[in-house]
Amino acid sequence: MKTKGSIQITKTIHYSCEQIERFCRDAFVKFGFTQEEAAQITVVLLLADLYNIRSHGTQRLVRYYRSIENDTIKIHAKPEIVFETPVSAVIDGHAGMGQLIASFATKLAIEKAKKCGMAFVTVRNSNHFGIAGYYTKMACDAGMIGIATTSTESIMVHTHAKQAILGTNPIAFAMPAKPIPFWFDAATTVVPRGKLEVSHKEGKPLNPTWAVDETGKPNRNADHVLTCINQKRGGGILPVGGDTEETGSHKGYGYGMICELLSAITSGGATSNHHVRAKGVGAGTCHAFIVIDPKIFGDAEAMEERLSVFLQELRDAERADPDVPIYTHGEKEAISCERIRKEGIDVNINTIAEMIAICKYLGMDSKEYLGEVDLSNATAGEIKMY
Amino acid sequence: MKTKGSIQITKTIHYSCEQIERFCRDAFVKFGFTQEEAAQITVVLLLADLYNIRSHGTQRLVRYYRSIENDTIKIHAKPEIVFETPVSAVIDGHAGMGQLIASFATKLAIEKAKKCGMAFVTVRNSNHFGIAGYYTKMACDAGMIGIATTSTESIMVHTHAKQAILGTNPIAFAMPAKPIPFWFDAATTVVPRGKLEVSHKEGKPLNPTWAVDETGKPNRNADHVLTCINQKRGGGILPVGGDTEETGSHKGYGYGMICELLSAITSGGATSNHHVRAKGVGAGTCHAFIVIDPKIFGDAEAMEERLSVFLQELRDAERADPDVPIYTHGEKEAISCERIRKEGIDVNINTIAEMIAICKYLGMDSKEYLGEVDLSNATAGEIKMY
Repeated sequence: MKTKGSIQITKTIHYSCEQIERFCRDAFVKFGFTQEEAAQITVVLLLADLYNIRSHGTQRLVRYYRSIENDTIKIHAKPEIVFETPVSAVIDGHAGMGQLIASFATKLAIEKAKKCGMAFVTVRNSNHFGIAGYYTKMACDAGMIGIATTSTESIMVHTHAKQAILGTNPIAFAMPAKPIPFWFDAATTVVPRGKLEVSHKEGKPLNPTWAVDETGKPNRNADHVLTCINQKRGGGILPVGGDTEETGSHKGYGYGMICELLSAITSGGATSNHHVRAKGVGAGTCHAFIVIDPKIFGDAEAMEERLSVFLQELRDAERADPDVPIYTHGEKEAISCERIRKEGIDVNINTIAEMIAICKYLGMDSKEYLGEVDLSNATAGEIKMY
Repeated sequence: MKTKGSIQITKTIHYSCEQIERFCRDAFVKFGFTQEEAAQITVVLLLADLYNIRSHGTQRLVRYYRSIENDTIKIHAKPEIVFETPVSAVIDGHAGMGQLIASFATKLAIEKAKKCGMAFVTVRNSNHFGIAGYYTKMACDAGMIGIATTSTESIMVHTHAKQAILGTNPIAFAMPAKPIPFWFDAATTVVPRGKLEVSHKEGKPLNPTWAVDETGKPNRNADHVLTCINQKRGGGILPVGGDTEETGSHKGYGYGMICELLSAITSGGATSNHHVRAKGVGAGTCHAFIVIDPKIFGDAEAMEERLSVFLQELRDAERADPDVPIYTHGEKEAISCERIRKEGIDVNINTIAEMIAICKYLGMDSKEYLGEVDLSNATAGEIKMY
């Protein structure tokens, strides 16, 4: 199964979406969040699983768990509006849970866009917010155009550098269309970190356009590159466009910059190179949410119709290979979502081991949520954790 | 001399910027534009030359000439606001000169942003508008964040297709900073068409990530690919990210889509695949201009200071090669601008031949503008025109 930025492990156990949802909600309540907050966090994580973006779904639970344990994520922090105009707001997240801060900010942007036609809400002092595309989907579900971005930990090595300053910095964009909206969400690095981890686990050399080592030269050894990144020895992942201007590296570098400027510079927060990973201190993550009401251009229904026709033209284009279909952005995710909602989620055994550890920490009965699990196939202990 | 998307010809003649400016202004007046309009068109073209983006400077005069001759560009058309809200406008360009329509739209967006905090002006039925970055510079010079994009003729082959539907669709973004603003302007294709023309003239094979032929397979033969594009036989240039999802082709395809949606779908105009190149009919080009006043996030000066510090951190990052400096976007252009303004412009002999032809058509004395020119070195007649 091909996944986006996920860790591929063949050994999996099957659960219904309801089982996973119940586990997540109860776990977040046990961590100290309210029922409503736990539901909000869960719906963001679950959407990633439903969209088959495994790296940002239940697979990531352990990272939130560690951040909560380290007090990097402050459970009781509430987002505060520190500056506001009719079309804008600057929010201080006070190191709270990213999903809660980001959904608060997006709701605010939608309300403001409904009144003014468009709005821009920017956030500082947040934490990882899950998939950026969740928030553009919120806008799109409200009939709006949604744009979201975020800073992350430094991992992108910009053109001619050997040191990571920018993050993976995803850009998400959604706009209503039938039968499915245009829904784009992608890191501005050529690949997310998870792809390097997959290559490492599969013992495959990295694609030469993906990463550079501490000398700034392309390096195909996943273990070496990941160690460099983790120990902040230099090197990292390249921007989309690879390592030379000839293939457009300066473009990916530019897209990554736009994310930093819209999120960290507008909000007065930390750019990716100033994010921290220390006990008791919030990560410093910044986000940006732009919402545009299509009615500011006239007839919103006619616009939706135009976009739907255009997306169909793209899908109907002549194929390079008759057997390989052409997709528009969000189509694969919509197909996954329908399938997984019916069929359930295959959770890999290492993630289950992590979920069981979370149960133990929180005093939850793991069997009640996950059943009897044979962990003898779990390899988490053997896998080098980056 | 390395240029962006330009045609590289060694034989050049040197002119001062004032000479080129005078030629352009007088030529556009002779075409029928007012003095003010001719000055506006010239300043856009000249900025491209000053920024060393030769493909969009005087080198492109001949294309405007042909479009005017063909009545694709309607000299007397005036942009019309067909829908408006305090934060937005939809403009019908009525097939006028792109530079005039786009600068009108940008001025309107700046005015609206000054009043409301942010604004989005979208345009349909325009023509080629020069460099997208001219319009973000207008916003930036007014202390604003500027975003501009445009549809173009179809030339991008999207992931798994063999037929071009999207255009080169540049995204431009500018934001005030010291000593120079952040100024990004790049096609969402891996390279612009001009790069293929340069490879062809130099007899070099194309980079394999650049283009596909009519079968949808990467093809390194520039002549073949350019002929395919010109005859609309299939094939074209790949999105930034190349030809496989492994190197991020779907990302470049997504960025190209965002441009179409913001410009053609919002304005109700023609997406790139419906642009036309027929006598008497406007190209149908669509643009989008988003302007944001930094004051909607608080202290604009503090924001400019934060961005300036961040840009310096990027320039000061450890270099992969100690001899290759790291640039932030807009820095190379600022350096070029200062140099070329002092030193003048080297215009290639084929462009001069075209300028002389324009003089003949308009009844201008070419010697008065360009001096005595020996055209025996001009190869325009021998160069296959795509």
